[in-house]
Amino acid sequence: MANASDEFALIEWLRAQMAERRTDRVLLGIGDDAAVVRTSEIGETLIATDVLLEGVHFSLPDATARDVGHKALAVNLSDLAAMAARPTAAVLGAVFRRELGEPFARELLQAAADLADRFAVELVGGDTCIWDGPTMVCVTLMGEPTGRGVVRRSGAKPGDSILVTGELGGSLAGKHLRFQPRVEEAIALHAAAQLHAMIDVSDGLAADLNHILRESRVGAVLDAERIPTSDAAHRARDGRSPLEHALGDGEDFELLFTLAPEDAQHLLAHPPCDVPLTCIGQIVSGSGCQLRHPDGSLQPLAPSGWRHRF
Amino acid sequence: MANASDEFALIEWLRAQMAERRTDRVLLGIGDDAAVVRTSEIGETLIATDVLLEGVHFSLPDATARDVGHKALAVNLSDLAAMAARPTAAVLGAVFRRELGEPFARELLQAAADLADRFAVELVGGDTCIWDGPTMVCVTLMGEPTGRGVVRRSGAKPGDSILVTGELGGSLAGKHLRFQPRVEEAIALHAAAQLHAMIDVSDGLAADLNHILRESRVGAVLDAERIPTSDAAHRARDGRSPLEHALGDGEDFELLFTLAPEDAQHLLAHPPCDVPLTCIGQIVSGSGCQLRHPDGSLQPLAPSGWRHRF
Repeated sequence: MANASDEFALIEWLRAQMAERRTDRVLLGIGDDAAVVRTSEIGETLIATDVLLEGVHFSLPDATARDVGHKALAVNLSDLAAMAARPTAAVLGAVFRRELGEPFARELLQAAADLADRFAVELVGGDTCIWDGPTMVCVTLMGEPTGRGVVRRSGAKPGDSILVTGELGGSLAGKHLRFQPRVEEAIALHAAAQLHAMIDVSDGLAADLNHILRESRVGAVLDAERIPTSDAAHRARDGRSPLEHALGDGEDFELLFTLAPEDAQHLLAHPPCDVPLTCIGQIVSGSGCQLRHPDGSLQPLAPSGWRHRF
Repeated sequence: MANASDEFALIEWLRAQMAERRTDRVLLGIGDDAAVVRTSEIGETLIATDVLLEGVHFSLPDATARDVGHKALAVNLSDLAAMAARPTAAVLGAVFRRELGEPFARELLQAAADLADRFAVELVGGDTCIWDGPTMVCVTLMGEPTGRGVVRRSGAKPGDSILVTGELGGSLAGKHLRFQPRVEEAIALHAAAQLHAMIDVSDGLAADLNHILRESRVGAVLDAERIPTSDAAHRARDGRSPLEHALGDGEDFELLFTLAPEDAQHLLAHPPCDVPLTCIGQIVSGSGCQLRHPDGSLQPLAPSGWRHRF
């Protein structure tokens, strides 16, 4: 389609950038009416899409152009990681606020291209516009399952252990913009053990666990003292405890997954990736989530998280 | 990713809408971190993406919610038609201006879903937000080649006939919002004859022919009197002739293609589709485009079109 407002010829520039990086998976890249990529031999394609809006998902100049370009692709990489899938190709729609100028636009696109490179993703198409409104980026990412198939939200079973990668909470201090999507970790974990259900922590631990519980028609008990809280959650000093941050904050983009307890023991004893793994609770029959405190008391955990009451 | 601003729960609504329409091509639809679709047996996937912006590509209330939802998918269908490919699955990112309200959002999504249905396209994912800024829709469409392979912009050869479907010019009178993408026509044409190069007329006949000429490293001669001009181009009465409209106006979304002259004769004698076909000129060696007037005189044709000079 026409790029009527594309005064910077950004797509031509991106085409030149990507031409140097093309592999033989790309049969036809940027510059025709559509791109053509070689499809997975498994015969299934995964697709994720996300919109990032200035003033909603990021604010300028708190976020740099590189931050926005990185995050626009990274959130989609995290979605495919949550399925334990391998990302393959992406297209990018971007609308730039005119006053930010061409360097901002190029830096943003370059950051997306750099992250694509890191994960062997082909950036095969795009549509860019300049206007007087806010900046907006919409990335669509494709991928393919590994031999073990995709991991859905709906596969959790009573008795499963609940594990999480990394540490949670306080992401808004910076991690939400510059996080590393857990793509390799997810594939390594799913290769080492059959994962039953998985999601990436984008809405918050309590909310995202609730997605798994609802889709799997099961309940869960989380152990409060086992939930790994990040340094940022401890540094927050906003009246909320590190645990409250870990349960309620969004955009950690860590992996939250369930699997048979014996498989969990195996993973914890022989971790297939460098990022820390922590068992934080157990899937039970029923519905909803309960938080078990160190004194053994159980408390219902709302999807929005938990507020300590004095 | 989180739909933090999705107060209308639009994705849940769309998920329910699409669940009724799902075929066994969709292995996993809306509602998980990514969708999974069965991939073409040909082993190649096409991808096109387009952004539609309020105030740039459409204006409200001149365009209705249905117009915008239709056009957002239709422009991508037209891109895949231009490759003679079969569309398969789409994802949709949409940002709605809050004051337009939920009915507007649902009508827009419904129109996209209806058009998807008409072309057997699975709408498998989405990301929606509500904000105080302008409405924006970004659709990414996937497809697969037919047995004859895709038609690129770069395949035109000296001696080729240049054909166009339908009539051109004056699209802004309404066709630009409500056009029917030439998907079936493109597949039928490419099945009946080996097309060498093709594009959809989105920037304007002169500009889009120029894309083919540049990518194919050839030139062209167009016959002014053979260019089919639309009723809307004749009705325009803005001082520009119907021919000027046909050459310079964008968004007709007709097919412009080149093929061997004997194949063109065959197609014109035995059209494989209902939409009219017209031979408007010939590919020549060299570069650039010339317009041949009825008196035989030749005039260079700029990509921006042609202005009659008195």
